[in-house]
Amino acid sequence: MNQDYIVPNNWSIIEEGFDPDTVRASESLFSIGNGAMGQRANFEEYYSGPTFQGSYIAGVYYPDKTRVGWWKNGYPEYFAKVLNAPNWIGINVFVNDEKLDLFKCKSVEDFRRELNMKEGWYERSFRATLQNDIEVKVVSRRFLSLDLDELGVIRYAVTPLNSDAKVLLRPYLDSGIKNEDTNWEDKFWDTLDVKLQGNQAFIVSKTMKTDFYVSTFMQVEAGECNGYDFESNSFKSSTYASINLERKVKKGEEFSMVKYGGYATSMNHDKYKLISASRNILDQAVTLGYEKLLEKQKQAWAGVWEMADITIDGDVKAQQGIRFNIFQLNQTYLGKDARLNIGPKGFTGEKYGGSTYWDTEAYCIPFYMATKDQKVARNLLTYRYKHLEKAIENAEKLGFTNGAALYPMVTMNGEECHNEWEITFEEIHRNGAIAFAIYNYLRYTGDYSYVREMGMEVMIGIARFWHQRATYSTAKKKYVILGVTGPNEYENNVNNNWYTNYIAKWCINFAIEHIEKLKAEHTEDHDRIREKTALKDTEISKWQEVADNMFFPYSEEHKVYLQQDGFLDKEMVTVADLDKSQRPINQKWSWDRILRSPYIKQADTLQGFYFFEDDFTREELERHFDFYEPFTVHESSLSPCVHSIQAASLDRMDQAYTFYLRTSRLDLDDYNKEVHEGLHITSMAGTWMSIVEGFGGMRIKNGMPSFEPRIPKEWKAYSFKVNFRNQIIKMTVEQGQASFSLEGDKELDILVNGKEMRVSPDNLLTV
Amino acid sequence: MNQDYIVPNNWSIIEEGFDPDTVRASESLFSIGNGAMGQRANFEEYYSGPTFQGSYIAGVYYPDKTRVGWWKNGYPEYFAKVLNAPNWIGINVFVNDEKLDLFKCKSVEDFRRELNMKEGWYERSFRATLQNDIEVKVVSRRFLSLDLDELGVIRYAVTPLNSDAKVLLRPYLDSGIKNEDTNWEDKFWDTLDVKLQGNQAFIVSKTMKTDFYVSTFMQVEAGECNGYDFESNSFKSSTYASINLERKVKKGEEFSMVKYGGYATSMNHDKYKLISASRNILDQAVTLGYEKLLEKQKQAWAGVWEMADITIDGDVKAQQGIRFNIFQLNQTYLGKDARLNIGPKGFTGEKYGGSTYWDTEAYCIPFYMATKDQKVARNLLTYRYKHLEKAIENAEKLGFTNGAALYPMVTMNGEECHNEWEITFEEIHRNGAIAFAIYNYLRYTGDYSYVREMGMEVMIGIARFWHQRATYSTAKKKYVILGVTGPNEYENNVNNNWYTNYIAKWCINFAIEHIEKLKAEHTEDHDRIREKTALKDTEISKWQEVADNMFFPYSEEHKVYLQQDGFLDKEMVTVADLDKSQRPINQKWSWDRILRSPYIKQADTLQGFYFFEDDFTREELERHFDFYEPFTVHESSLSPCVHSIQAASLDRMDQAYTFYLRTSRLDLDDYNKEVHEGLHITSMAGTWMSIVEGFGGMRIKNGMPSFEPRIPKEWKAYSFKVNFRNQIIKMTVEQGQASFSLEGDKELDILVNGKEMRVSPDNLLTV
Repeated sequence: MNQDYIVPNNWSIIEEGFDPDTVRASESLFSIGNGAMGQRANFEEYYSGPTFQGSYIAGVYYPDKTRVGWWKNGYPEYFAKVLNAPNWIGINVFVNDEKLDLFKCKSVEDFRRELNMKEGWYERSFRATLQNDIEVKVVSRRFLSLDLDELGVIRYAVTPLNSDAKVLLRPYLDSGIKNEDTNWEDKFWDTLDVKLQGNQAFIVSKTMKTDFYVSTFMQVEAGECNGYDFESNSFKSSTYASINLERKVKKGEEFSMVKYGGYATSMNHDKYKLISASRNILDQAVTLGYEKLLEKQKQAWAGVWEMADITIDGDVKAQQGIRFNIFQLNQTYLGKDARLNIGPKGFTGEKYGGSTYWDTEAYCIPFYMATKDQKVARNLLTYRYKHLEKAIENAEKLGFTNGAALYPMVTMNGEECHNEWEITFEEIHRNGAIAFAIYNYLRYTGDYSYVREMGMEVMIGIARFWHQRATYSTAKKKYVILGVTGPNEYENNVNNNWYTNYIAKWCINFAIEHIEKLKAEHTEDHDRIREKTALKDTEISKWQEVADNMFFPYSEEHKVYLQQDGFLDKEMVTVADLDKSQRPINQKWSWDRILRSPYIKQADTLQGFYFFEDDFTREELERHFDFYEPFTVHESSLSPCVHSIQAASLDRMDQAYTFYLRTSRLDLDDYNKEVHEGLHITSMAGTWMSIVEGFGGMRIKNGMPSFEPRIPKEWKAYSFKVNFRNQIIKMTVEQGQASFSLEGDKELDILVNGKEMRVSPDNLLTV
Repeated sequence: MNQDYIVPNNWSIIEEGFDPDTVRASESLFSIGNGAMGQRANFEEYYSGPTFQGSYIAGVYYPDKTRVGWWKNGYPEYFAKVLNAPNWIGINVFVNDEKLDLFKCKSVEDFRRELNMKEGWYERSFRATLQNDIEVKVVSRRFLSLDLDELGVIRYAVTPLNSDAKVLLRPYLDSGIKNEDTNWEDKFWDTLDVKLQGNQAFIVSKTMKTDFYVSTFMQVEAGECNGYDFESNSFKSSTYASINLERKVKKGEEFSMVKYGGYATSMNHDKYKLISASRNILDQAVTLGYEKLLEKQKQAWAGVWEMADITIDGDVKAQQGIRFNIFQLNQTYLGKDARLNIGPKGFTGEKYGGSTYWDTEAYCIPFYMATKDQKVARNLLTYRYKHLEKAIENAEKLGFTNGAALYPMVTMNGEECHNEWEITFEEIHRNGAIAFAIYNYLRYTGDYSYVREMGMEVMIGIARFWHQRATYSTAKKKYVILGVTGPNEYENNVNNNWYTNYIAKWCINFAIEHIEKLKAEHTEDHDRIREKTALKDTEISKWQEVADNMFFPYSEEHKVYLQQDGFLDKEMVTVADLDKSQRPINQKWSWDRILRSPYIKQADTLQGFYFFEDDFTREELERHFDFYEPFTVHESSLSPCVHSIQAASLDRMDQAYTFYLRTSRLDLDDYNKEVHEGLHITSMAGTWMSIVEGFGGMRIKNGMPSFEPRIPKEWKAYSFKVNFRNQIIKMTVEQGQASFSLEGDKELDILVNGKEMRVSPDNLLTV
């Protein structure tokens, strides 16, 4: 843990007291988003202290030309960078002509931030004494509307406290912004038009290279606006537009304004009509007004929580942590738009670039399936189908043929962006997660239409890749997969990574199973897809040959599958016996030392046991867990959740709870000393899994939800809901008992600790 | 082969005819150097066509801040770049006020370049018709003096051919130069002073960061110089100084000038007295004058050739090729200065940076031992001793302790410069070559003083490294070396590379052998070194334990040592069966595909058989050669020579000759399509080895030179000399017979085809 300044609270994230050293961390933690846009918690008014400015629009990116030390054939031409978008939140404040700047004030008192997760707004308030000795109180509240997702709203109010004062509020738009993350100091935006009209302003800009057109807009309202001459109080330059609202304000009197702002983009509107699209949004906003919009915001978030909330009784920090995770996931992705995905930093920072990693399939889909309508998960799968052609091109760049598809490590539009050979070219297990997500979706929703309409083609492309990537070893008389990086990125270019080989074999079998199922049950789809993909029976036989004869490294001595060939040649010193001064090894050790050590960054063999749990006995899981976990350093934010789930299923609740703690407040307590760069959004879904799949023991078995409830001894009770095929079931677990209730009017059969039970909407089922 | 415009000639490199497309290639091929400085064959006069300007000063470099896509712990902060130095050769020419520019002339006739290797000068001549229809003849000859190695000389002459003309020659100095190879577009040079005085000019500049001070100087002489008012015909700016020499020249009359120029640097002079040092050099030059300097140059080169020449009778292209290689090696390094080394591009380009690779120890030292006084090889070994402290620091950066030394992959001052983890951190076999060179030097020269004074400490640091780098595998019950890149860089992060394990074991045994020898025979040195290095007997025992129990991968089926663990799991398709369209694989394939293929870039296991030939039987060599060569793509310039030597020793002369051809004219015929970037200097030493060790079969056995003469059927005869412990023996081989002669007055015992024979100075021994 690196910080503990966040005030524990069941529903809000709260900071009290002003500390310039935590400004950038809080800018991340208090970020707001609505799935379509996002905003770091930057101050509206000018701030000269250290700050990391960030406004983001979902799907808008810049292809930053690749920078490497030594070029390797096959590297992508660019890295898709998350773009800092034009600023719409700015409101500069002048008090008796002095510019308000918290970094320069004589004193700042009662500084308080609150991110109200229940209602979906962020408020900041403080009293500040300026250099000119005027003390003012400022209250600023803002939110990004879930209903009108191109709109943000700010209410900003200033009250002079110790004397009358001339107060000037200067709301502005600014497209002269920069990215912190840039390879070549390129200019990312080109501003085309700056327009001021009455109390409205618009800046139309477009991204370089990608040509996303964006209108950034604002409309300003103040109590005294009637008859105000905005035109003669406005200013514009080539990348900036502002309106001055100036008043003599009596001591103790509040001068407030409301700023409606946001973005209309060419992703959703005609690129030549963005200003009129912006006006439409503003019209809707102003018609409703601030209070009504806020009311609708509360309702919208209530709807989200109704489905997604997890309650924890008896541990306010755990409660705050899990809600923060659920809140951020919903701020990042609401599943309305199949062009979007879940970036690892969401709308809270620039780092990592791209929007889509295998995190989506491996960690996020279960959360969205269980807490939203199943269309949301379907949209995430559709996203990959839309990228199939690019995945085939990616594979071609690496020498594969005949429609083999390799999904990218990192992407915005389907093209690979990453450029380390050991990751880009070799961390190919990611391809397996894409197919696994189809399996997972099918198992959960029972919706076969995705397979018929899209998924089968994806599965064929992936099976083709694995068939071509495996090679026959005459020495082993088996198919081997050479030169890969597994989920444990602390091993590079290894042979026969067990996880990779296992998922490769699984992908081929999964594809063949569904080709046969389509043939038997959906002949028309089958024939259409076979023709489209030019897939012959002879090719399928060759796949089968590879799957049936895949090599898996195994230790007779330890009775475990080996993470890769030669794993036991390492010096097998456990993490417990490693000097603490050497950790985290990714900061202390050179890369070669990490590579030849036995240390595991995140679940690798155990990731396979997590995905394919039913293929193994409890004893096998226990043996592998006991073999691998002691070498695991958990230096990925995605590591503890899988181990927490497995520890829980092995009835090791203390261990499970310890792993859980490492994930749920990772950002709030800044374990990794990097929260100022943004939040770890995708790993937040892992936290949700730790409770639902770990403590709750939820699985889908034979088309039924199955639970094996457990509870950490530190908690009094916890509860969560899951949406299973449009029936919403709520489980509440207390020490010694679990109860199940159901919404709607249909009954549902579930498994509890392996026993089949029927839950009906009227009765609470208690076990 | 990519080009064949070089005119075959026994002693000169000749180009005839002007082709702008070959200008950059010729700039490399006609480069001149004298071990202390070098100069690409750039035109003296202005040229607006494609050109790669390069003037270089040995030992002067710039530490260019590392640029990577993704940083890894342990990467060096900078890459030492070979620096393009201020231009001293420039002479602009104006004919009736039109600037002479061969790229813009109406016609260029009789264009000819000659690099006279026998005498050490470069001449260029042509007739050109300018836009103003004046036709001029230009003859320019230049050389870098071997005697005064801070001095270069140019004689430049212009003759108007079709009318009288006003000719202006404007010799200049220019420090406003740039590197083509720069990571951040940094400025590499800062100019401090520009001075013009009479017919002399000086520019004092210093390198950024490294603070090398350099005075670039010139003095201009022309027949008409007496009484010429240089001062009022000179011009200077902040980075430039020029002198105008203008004359009305009659049709058919020659207007000529001599320019003396070069560099005085703070490596050899007080940095505040560089201008007076420059004046001293110019005084010596002018006192001798052009003709006398040229005469001395011829004598100096005659001295070099007297010792280093290899004659080939019956194959002018082969003769030209081998002399070109010997000439370039001598232009690059003459062994006078223990601070210098043999950069892979010498003074012919910027690429690769740094000056020292393992090439020096693995390929170059044999050449210098045999063709120079043994002090030269000793200087190369001393260079590494001077870097021992840095090598210990390099190892510490990677987590090694207790004086373990890791010599860098690339360096200027002993610090590692390279920044690919798979090379920098893992291609550690380079450390073995440093120790092997000591062994090789000792075997050849019998000079034990280097071991006593310096080498023993180097050997101890290296043995300590291998001891720490090997780890015990309980699975194999042997010591293993995990995560390395062998000489074959088409495999990365492999386990138990046979070559690396073998040389590691050898290094430890070699160190222990000499610790014991010192103890027995040089107790004082022994005790001093043991104290200085704090080396205890217990530590030595631990080394021995590692060496005695080193693991070597072996195939019982093929009866060969395996290049690394798991080598036989690959798809073993030979190069002959690989589609030609796929080659060279380093241009056609992505890196992962190269890595998982069986293809070998350069000798790896066979490199070990080359170094440690005596440890294996002829049958073992043959088996390994037949196993590995068919998978070798020879995509390193250092590959064919080792294979040529081994093919010769296996009596496969056709194969040996084919390999020889690939090396000896690599640059002249531009096999790799990159000669414009500079020459492959270090691999030229491999060509020399192909003849002396390959065809000549020279080895040192029991302290005696040993020969097994062979001759390619394509040749009538060849001969070479070697300096063995200050006795110079010449071997001449014709079809069916070999003869040996000796200089001096002492007899020498040699082995010929295994039989001991005595050569005496008076008699030719014919076999």
